[in-house]
Amino acid sequence: MTTITTIEPPSKRAEIREAAAQLFRDKGYAATSMRDLAEAVGLKAPSIYNHFASKEEILRSICFDNAQRFLNGLSQIERMPGSAADKLRALIRLHILIATEDATSVIAINDEWRHLTEPYLSRFVAIRREYEQRFKAIVEQGVQCGKLRNVHPHIAVHTIFSSMRWLHDWYKPGKSITPTDIERDIEGILMEGLVCGE
Amino acid sequence: MTTITTIEPPSKRAEIREAAAQLFRDKGYAATSMRDLAEAVGLKAPSIYNHFASKEEILRSICFDNAQRFLNGLSQIERMPGSAADKLRALIRLHILIATEDATSVIAINDEWRHLTEPYLSRFVAIRREYEQRFKAIVEQGVQCGKLRNVHPHIAVHTIFSSMRWLHDWYKPGKSITPTDIERDIEGILMEGLVCGE
Repeated sequence: MTTITTIEPPSKRAEIREAAAQLFRDKGYAATSMRDLAEAVGLKAPSIYNHFASKEEILRSICFDNAQRFLNGLSQIERMPGSAADKLRALIRLHILIATEDATSVIAINDEWRHLTEPYLSRFVAIRREYEQRFKAIVEQGVQCGKLRNVHPHIAVHTIFSSMRWLHDWYKPGKSITPTDIERDIEGILMEGLVCGE
Repeated sequence: MTTITTIEPPSKRAEIREAAAQLFRDKGYAATSMRDLAEAVGLKAPSIYNHFASKEEILRSICFDNAQRFLNGLSQIERMPGSAADKLRALIRLHILIATEDATSVIAINDEWRHLTEPYLSRFVAIRREYEQRFKAIVEQGVQCGKLRNVHPHIAVHTIFSSMRWLHDWYKPGKSITPTDIERDIEGILMEGLVCGE
């Protein structure tokens, strides 16, 4: 008997990825089984293999697709006209947009990528490093031309990345605090600071 | 035969806690055994029970001692003279100090507390909530008296907490970037912003 492979609807794949990211966060990647995943999306255990060959394939799909989303955003911002400060504002908005629109991506990108195996782990680490280097180059440029405070670029980049890492866990559509409020306040804090100008 | 309980040297207890925090982070709390912990600190498996009765007792010890350290710092800062902005600066320095001096605490406080069981879990959640509320009250006071930017206190508090959550993972004594650099830059970004005043 051969396995019947059906053409999967894209929404089921997305649903499995979303459920996987949540289970990975709640139970840990190691403790999550394909059976747990099947149950979470209302499939019989063997049917999940019509969508993904393994748990790691799900993780790879989440990690690489979302890394690509960050890289695409960064490429657009690098090409846009404007100062390093304008680009930094756009990058902050990119992180807020992804965190509020797609929490799954942020969970994967922050933590779960550590469970990738080779050669995917090295590839993923290289993408992260590239993203960080190109982000840092924008900060360095801003510091050099005197538009940005004279901070250590490594500290600045990690403070920025980290400052938004609570959003994906907390934000839900329909909250009284909207993505516009979040954008205004976080961009305001990071770019102009918490202290009021006199 | 009864178990011989020795008076444990405080350094061994601290060493076990440190090793535990690292193992919890690397392998996950569920996947870490008392045997792994004993091996990590060079003890025979049964000897570790002279120091801690269970894995959860280690986790409790890490979580509650460190929560206390944050609360003590906050109490001191609340009592000090000065504006809300001065207090906020002192709180940022408190978080940086704890993250650079004691990475263990931050790992526990950020993630591992979720593995506590009742009644400890509820107690710990209540302490976190209290800390957050008192921190938020300082921000609210600063916004009300016009010393701080008109941000949503919830957004401000979580952006501040989160912005320093990479330090414990990255900082090692002897780095070319010192705790003084870190303090100056992170305090500068959060309080005065990345953009240079003209």
